[in-house]
Amino acid sequence: MTEQSKKNESNPAGEGFMPGLAIDAVIFGFHDHQLKVLLMEYKRSKIFALPGGFIRKEEDLNSAAYRVVSERTGLQNIYLEQFYVFGDYARFDPSPMKTIMQANEFAHDDDHWLLQRFISVGYYALVDFTKVTPLPDKIFDGCNWYPLSDVPNLMQDHNQIIKKALESLQSDLDRKLVAFNLMPGEFTMNELQGLYETILGAKFLRSAFQRKMLSLGILERIAKRMSGGAHKAPYLYKFRS
Amino acid sequence: MTEQSKKNESNPAGEGFMPGLAIDAVIFGFHDHQLKVLLMEYKRSKIFALPGGFIRKEEDLNSAAYRVVSERTGLQNIYLEQFYVFGDYARFDPSPMKTIMQANEFAHDDDHWLLQRFISVGYYALVDFTKVTPLPDKIFDGCNWYPLSDVPNLMQDHNQIIKKALESLQSDLDRKLVAFNLMPGEFTMNELQGLYETILGAKFLRSAFQRKMLSLGILERIAKRMSGGAHKAPYLYKFRS
Repeated sequence: MTEQSKKNESNPAGEGFMPGLAIDAVIFGFHDHQLKVLLMEYKRSKIFALPGGFIRKEEDLNSAAYRVVSERTGLQNIYLEQFYVFGDYARFDPSPMKTIMQANEFAHDDDHWLLQRFISVGYYALVDFTKVTPLPDKIFDGCNWYPLSDVPNLMQDHNQIIKKALESLQSDLDRKLVAFNLMPGEFTMNELQGLYETILGAKFLRSAFQRKMLSLGILERIAKRMSGGAHKAPYLYKFRS
Repeated sequence: MTEQSKKNESNPAGEGFMPGLAIDAVIFGFHDHQLKVLLMEYKRSKIFALPGGFIRKEEDLNSAAYRVVSERTGLQNIYLEQFYVFGDYARFDPSPMKTIMQANEFAHDDDHWLLQRFISVGYYALVDFTKVTPLPDKIFDGCNWYPLSDVPNLMQDHNQIIKKALESLQSDLDRKLVAFNLMPGEFTMNELQGLYETILGAKFLRSAFQRKMLSLGILERIAKRMSGGAHKAPYLYKFRS
């Protein structure tokens, strides 16, 4: 649920959207040696949730996911990956949404479309933390980064969705070389190693990590970072596009 | 669309099913040194399609996929993997379904639920070819294996779905060690190598393949296959459970 909140209130049948299908987005950023996710907080009800949304009747599913992440981050260029569809019947629990609607004085009957069962397509996004401006919409009063190690209780199965997204990211890391989407344009080998270690929850030998990364042929060495003594300044790298 | 065909005819609103969401199943079998897929042929219209189905209102998505594959193969124990959601608006083309309905004298208006837009969750299944009894339902007159190299033109984007399923299987092969689901209970190293080579479209050195497989610790050597001269009989293996 995003910008359509106002519209949803006067749209009890979900006019204009594909019924029964939602998108939940796990937006990963890397900052301060931590992997972080962007979370929403519903006004008044103190309920936390993943950014999400619905698919318009004539919209591509992937475009809808792109729109959702773009609206929350302000970014136009986003690495996005479908990772799983959450479709257990046990997910269906209208009570948190009822609480939210009541707290915000949304008019609603029990057959309001937002109170029906949804199957949700999970996407993860990898973004450059430094470029994001988190943007809540009208029914959220919070849109903020949380370290993965300190995620609050989220509505429905959203904590499980984050767990599964992290597993997918870990599994995709080597195969698809996706990590560079989490880095700023230029970085040191040390910073890249920190990212891999954080995602995989493991420590690597500096020399082995550097050898492996360079052997992939995806890094370009550009210059030394100028700070302090030049002989100690590390090289900067960027990813070849 | 599967066993519900009869019901669908008198169920123009899709009562009892999640609206707008379908399942398409790419069922892989390995036989005669070839990777094969199970395809359906609609009665009278000569339209070919992947096995598929819908999700009941109170059914888990994964259970629905399991049911679909079980109905078509007669199997109870199925390795099933979600691999992608096909959600482009351009998929939406009611004309093949209209042709099928007309050919089978299904009563239908243009707002029949089967003529609306569907987003489809793609699953691939890996089955032991020797254990499958392909089963058509009432609106299909064919349910047969086709070699991947000889798949006919399928309805909608089903050829694309098979392509994407194969890419996913290739990518999952090492990571998840899924290949054994395509093998009978016992097999020679040579047969296993044939399977890997077929899926990946590559040739391996016999000694290197054997070394790699044994190093994974997932194979158990059980006995020699008794046929011809005992000194030439290859060892049989099975996967450790």
